Amino acid sequence: MSAMNTGGNPQLNSHGELQHLLTIEGLPRDVLTRILDTAAPFSEVAEREVKKVPLLRGKSVFNLFFENSTRTRTTFEIAAKRLSADVINLNISTSSANKGETLLDTADNLAAMQADMFVVRHASSGAPYLIAQHLAATGRDHIHVVNAGDGRHAHPTQGLLDMYTIRHYKQDFSQLTIAIVGDVLHSRVARSQIHALTTLGVPEVRVIAPKTLLPTGIERLGVRVFNDMREGLRGVDVVMMLRLQNERMQGALLPSTQEYFKSWGLTPEKLQLAKPDAIVMHPGPMNRGVEIDSAVADGGQAVILPQVTFGIAVRMAVMAMLAGN
Amino acid sequence: MSAMNTGGNPQLNSHGELQHLLTIEGLPRDVLTRILDTAAPFSEVAEREVKKVPLLRGKSVFNLFFENSTRTRTTFEIAAKRLSADVINLNISTSSANKGETLLDTADNLAAMQADMFVVRHASSGAPYLIAQHLAATGRDHIHVVNAGDGRHAHPTQGLLDMYTIRHYKQDFSQLTIAIVGDVLHSRVARSQIHALTTLGVPEVRVIAPKTLLPTGIERLGVRVFNDMREGLRGVDVVMMLRLQNERMQGALLPSTQEYFKSWGLTPEKLQLAKPDAIVMHPGPMNRGVEIDSAVADGGQAVILPQVTFGIAVRMAVMAMLAGN
Amino acid sequence: MSAMNTGGNPQLNSHGELQHLLTIEGLPRDVLTRILDTAAPFSEVAEREVKKVPLLRGKSVFNLFFENSTRTRTTFEIAAKRLSADVINLNISTSSANKGETLLDTADNLAAMQADMFVVRHASSGAPYLIAQHLAATGRDHIHVVNAGDGRHAHPTQGLLDMYTIRHYKQDFSQLTIAIVGDVLHSRVARSQIHALTTLGVPEVRVIAPKTLLPTGIERLGVRVFNDMREGLRGVDVVMMLRLQNERMQGALLPSTQEYFKSWGLTPEKLQLAKPDAIVMHPGPMNRGVEIDSAVADGGQAVILPQVTFGIAVRMAVMAMLAGN
Repeated sequence: MSAMNTGGNPQLNSHGELQHLLTIEGLPRDVLTRILDTAAPFSEVAEREVKKVPLLRGKSVFNLFFENSTRTRTTFEIAAKRLSADVINLNISTSSANKGETLLDTADNLAAMQADMFVVRHASSGAPYLIAQHLAATGRDHIHVVNAGDGRHAHPTQGLLDMYTIRHYKQDFSQLTIAIVGDVLHSRVARSQIHALTTLGVPEVRVIAPKTLLPTGIERLGVRVFNDMREGLRGVDVVMMLRLQNERMQGALLPSTQEYFKSWGLTPEKLQLAKPDAIVMHPGPMNRGVEIDSAVADGGQAVILPQVTFGIAVRMAVMAMLAGN
Repeated sequence: MSAMNTGGNPQLNSHGELQHLLTIEGLPRDVLTRILDTAAPFSEVAEREVKKVPLLRGKSVFNLFFENSTRTRTTFEIAAKRLSADVINLNISTSSANKGETLLDTADNLAAMQADMFVVRHASSGAPYLIAQHLAATGRDHIHVVNAGDGRHAHPTQGLLDMYTIRHYKQDFSQLTIAIVGDVLHSRVARSQIHALTTLGVPEVRVIAPKTLLPTGIERLGVRVFNDMREGLRGVDVVMMLRLQNERMQGALLPSTQEYFKSWGLTPEKLQLAKPDAIVMHPGPMNRGVEIDSAVADGGQAVILPQVTFGIAVRMAVMAMLAGN
Repeated sequence: MSAMNTGGNPQLNSHGELQHLLTIEGLPRDVLTRILDTAAPFSEVAEREVKKVPLLRGKSVFNLFFENSTRTRTTFEIAAKRLSADVINLNISTSSANKGETLLDTADNLAAMQADMFVVRHASSGAPYLIAQHLAATGRDHIHVVNAGDGRHAHPTQGLLDMYTIRHYKQDFSQLTIAIVGDVLHSRVARSQIHALTTLGVPEVRVIAPKTLLPTGIERLGVRVFNDMREGLRGVDVVMMLRLQNERMQGALLPSTQEYFKSWGLTPEKLQLAKPDAIVMHPGPMNRGVEIDSAVADGGQAVILPQVTFGIAVRMAVMAMLAGN
């Protein structure tokens, strides 16, 4: 129950410890590294016969999903259960939100049920931040907030599991060239990834995308932009594919998915331009034949399923660190 | 496994112990008091690091929701989990009810899965009572039923947590003047509250509402009716606001919500007519700016969030008492 | 973690032990008998005060429901929880399936979360088999698949609980005449039942149905077909009613449900043609007044609710055997 450092980063308390996980933006390198270090032993828990540790026994974790995402909810649910927490799933889209209750009233109510942690998914950017701020303003900083995706803004545990995966396969961040490929504009993951990679000391981060799927001013984040996939992939150590966010596109930014695949889909032939030991990542769910060829998705360089496995360990680490502070 | 007292109150067994919790109506004062007394230590469990007690370990609690209510379901789910029960959530509206199965066939089926407790929410008044009656008639009174809201009829755990809250802040019921304000007609809570308050010896219970939102014959429950809010609030110790049940209203009983707020919304100015140490309660979810002003909802006299906290303790108490009989 | 016997039955490993439960078809008599024997003590667990055993503690069971079935999901959820597993419910119809992810990508993802068991319900025949095959092909045969109903194909745990029920009431399969009555064409249960009964040595299995509700070539499964209910029921020991699958019928195979009841509904009068100690079974949910008269459903010969109870024990047995291999 440490005091919030109201002046600085709302995610860190006055001792520089993780109070909430809202975004990777602004997290210092040592905090990022501490999360990855903490995740390593949890990755071994999952290999045991009994995949449980009692770290969160008797704690109440609320999965507060204002937007449906079975996949993300499942990863947090399984992580919390392996920490022995009591988990309550709430799909708010179909419930009291309809009754006109505000976001903060909902949060207040659940907090009053002695919640220990909120895992928040929301279609609007900033919703988890609002909740965290409100908890701090009302003296309830023993309740921790984890952002499980807010609008186009952030999805920090996805970014962290990507970093864990890269470190697992490549060890040292300081020698890498890494390409992020695809629909950067609608991705809540890309920003998290870029912040994490630059903070961890990756010397060259490339963004490869058609101009229509690039946010303006992306260069200011310290990345090199490529509008030609073949050029951008040349010599990279890691290819981080993004999902084509069909469902989030408004208006006609794109030709057909077949044409998209032709220019921006990762095929074995294009992958050959990267280093021979390059790894291929994807946050899932994949659109096979749109942003990625099945031969790559199921090939020897893909580490897409290990990403999922590491994702559980990273979420366990984040929850354990928050509950420990 | 005590015999049902078939002649009298179906909620009490032949030893006068709680067998089911269906409605506050007809519950003797000593049973009400015993529930409140039992809740007190559970309220402390929630303050501990490990918020669990093993009282219902290995018991199966079925949340049988024929009507969606995430908020109420959550309170029962968290209460049951903190008692270490196995909890199964069933939203029946979207399942076998569609396949034409009757209410009692559904109950029979779940009972055959060795259920220990049914928490029942239903849009029709009397559904939990029907299930309890059926279990008794078929010799299965080791299964307990808790009414989690049936139509406009009753919501007894809400009524009980209100009593717990009042006792917490005011200690002695026998000196109080208490006002229930708002949409009494569509409220399933108001009846539960009135029965509880009169049984516990509150000398003056007032009901404040526009005539269109008052059930006929409400006076017979032993309350004083006011059709003017200012008059009704004068000198009260407790203001129990009701939610305006917009979604349950059929036809045009009301002008606009703005006009409603003007006459029936609780503002700081109106609240000044009550005693200076009066408390303000609301069952949630609140319609801010409709039945309650935000300045009151978030003000120093509101005990709306403590109500939620006490609600978990009261539900734990009810479940523990039922499972113990 | 035994090797798959790729040549033979994909459900059995090279030691003849249960690796998956996909269909009763092809399961040898000794495996069927072993499942029923294993279920017996679990049926006693459910009678205890604490209805839990720690056999699956720390294991992750995913209820993977691509088709909604609250009833079936509940039976597996309660069985897994009584084995102390962590249970994750996924209703995929409303989630990433919408995002265009394939069945096998979904399975891969969940497998990467260190799943121990998938309980799969799918509208398409063969979906659980596809997942099992894919897990084997990719060297992950420590993950077990249980078919919880696939299209019209199979529903093996329902078939097994029927066998458990018959053995419980009739002991010896080798002397019985058993009738399966009703909508065989649309039933996923009937095939499972026929395979199990003939494998366990029942000398006479009858199928009683109108011609429009019989699959062609049903005789080849070793059953006697009757198109007259009275004739077919004469002298049977067990009557296994099927649910009229109204919702699965396409086109007009039937007259009204009243006419169906007249010819094919089980009434007390028709039941008198069976042996005096004949038992009546139904997989639920029942259509009272359509395929079964309430007087029979609630009468002394019905064992429909014990079927449900035994169903939990059988599912616990299957899960425990799979996790033990």
